[in-house]
Amino acid sequence: MPHNRALGIEAVLATKGMAILKLPYDERLVGNPENGVSHGGAVTSLIDAACGFAAISATDVPRRLVTLDLRIDYLRPATPEAPLFARAQAYHTTRDIAFMQAQAYQDDIVDLIAHATGTFMFVGKGAGGTERKS
Amino acid sequence: MPHNRALGIEAVLATKGMAILKLPYDERLVGNPENGVSHGGAVTSLIDAACGFAAISATDVPRRLVTLDLRIDYLRPATPEAPLFARAQAYHTTRDIAFMQAQAYQDDIVDLIAHATGTFMFVGKGAGGTERKS
Amino acid sequence: MPHNRALGIEAVLATKGMAILKLPYDERLVGNPENGVSHGGAVTSLIDAACGFAAISATDVPRRLVTLDLRIDYLRPATPEAPLFARAQAYHTTRDIAFMQAQAYQDDIVDLIAHATGTFMFVGKGAGGTERKS
Amino acid sequence: MPHNRALGIEAVLATKGMAILKLPYDERLVGNPENGVSHGGAVTSLIDAACGFAAISATDVPRRLVTLDLRIDYLRPATPEAPLFARAQAYHTTRDIAFMQAQAYQDDIVDLIAHATGTFMFVGKGAGGTERKS
Repeated sequence: MPHNRALGIEAVLATKGMAILKLPYDERLVGNPENGVSHGGAVTSLIDAACGFAAISATDVPRRLVTLDLRIDYLRPATPEAPLFARAQAYHTTRDIAFMQAQAYQDDIVDLIAHATGTFMFVGKGAGGTERKS
Repeated sequence: MPHNRALGIEAVLATKGMAILKLPYDERLVGNPENGVSHGGAVTSLIDAACGFAAISATDVPRRLVTLDLRIDYLRPATPEAPLFARAQAYHTTRDIAFMQAQAYQDDIVDLIAHATGTFMFVGKGAGGTERKS
Repeated sequence: MPHNRALGIEAVLATKGMAILKLPYDERLVGNPENGVSHGGAVTSLIDAACGFAAISATDVPRRLVTLDLRIDYLRPATPEAPLFARAQAYHTTRDIAFMQAQAYQDDIVDLIAHATGTFMFVGKGAGGTERKS
Repeated sequence: MPHNRALGIEAVLATKGMAILKLPYDERLVGNPENGVSHGGAVTSLIDAACGFAAISATDVPRRLVTLDLRIDYLRPATPEAPLFARAQAYHTTRDIAFMQAQAYQDDIVDLIAHATGTFMFVGKGAGGTERKS
């Protein structure tokens, strides 16, 4: 995924309906030069990527996937100099919809930086949303 | 903002509580090589940046700003080879909170690609959320 | 709709993909007896009902509809003794999805009490979500 | 809370920052008379009430609380004739903000009917949002 590579996002783990991605600390992603804290947009991008990755892996047969919506809650700033992780999982799936949740964290998954909730749809042609995969 | 520069995001227009940002088409941001459509994460990043930019400009006196949450609805895929725009505005502000909306579009702002809603807080120290500006 | 009748919700106007509902002021819905302000849950219920009503009317042929998700932003308290209105519209529809927005207000639709965004799906059998209509 | 009493909502359990509420099955809340399934708005109201209740209990000293925003994901229809439960908890709190999550279920909390995420603010006077308590 070129967009993810441009940011330096790496896959750590992926199973059916779940994915963990990593964003190494990068001075290019700092939002506040005075304290070195990463830009909130870096967290957003990482979570967005993790949700798409996990949602795609939630089906047994390959199907096109579109993001319908995504909500992110930002709980606290990231700690400078340390990598960011995002874990996304399809916590409920129906024939057409994957209901996703994701957590962003650094050292400890219970000390969250952000939490996300999103709705993705498996589709045929012309179904709206923003396509993740052909 | 290094994160935004890394993606190629440019400011087009900014007034009090409103901002328009542009993301030029870039093959590095393509999500689907078969059709050249940009990755959904590019739309997410652009909207996130526009909301932060507009929210910061919504106060008369400089104050720190944190993003509490952001929801993005993805209405349709972007058209390849054309730039993306995001327009964000503070549609309601209180002493502490800026309620934001944003639209992503290409040629025509009424033919939306995505729509966003978010809540930002003006803060003193230690207030949680993800800081946008010191 | 018995649930809506129990709260006293009335239809004011409905066209294809749009609906305006009214909740008369009612002491039973007061959240704060000291100042007579209605409970936030009354606003939530009214917006939820308006979105469902407008989404159902967005199709040409009768189809079942499920709510996938709904976000409500609460901008300011309602004024006591005055009715509440909610206007909901399908601002973008695809074959399967109605993207909804709604506004809650009292005297003036530009002086909002709450703003909502939601995603509804037109379905066949067994598609998940919470059904609004058979 | 008169609004909650009008719907028949009862408190089951409340500890600091957590609450479980119950909505007994009631034919007045049926959304679809053909199958007896409760209206989605009943789930919305119950979750909204549970979040407010749990958020209020999250502070050590009494403070006013306003709801900034609430998102609900609707995973599946409720089963007729059985009560609904909602469990809400403040999963992260800062000086000013309670980040809330809630689950609606019937027999089993792991078989969810709906999932919710919301942001509440502890305030002084005139801070916007919709007040829950004086």
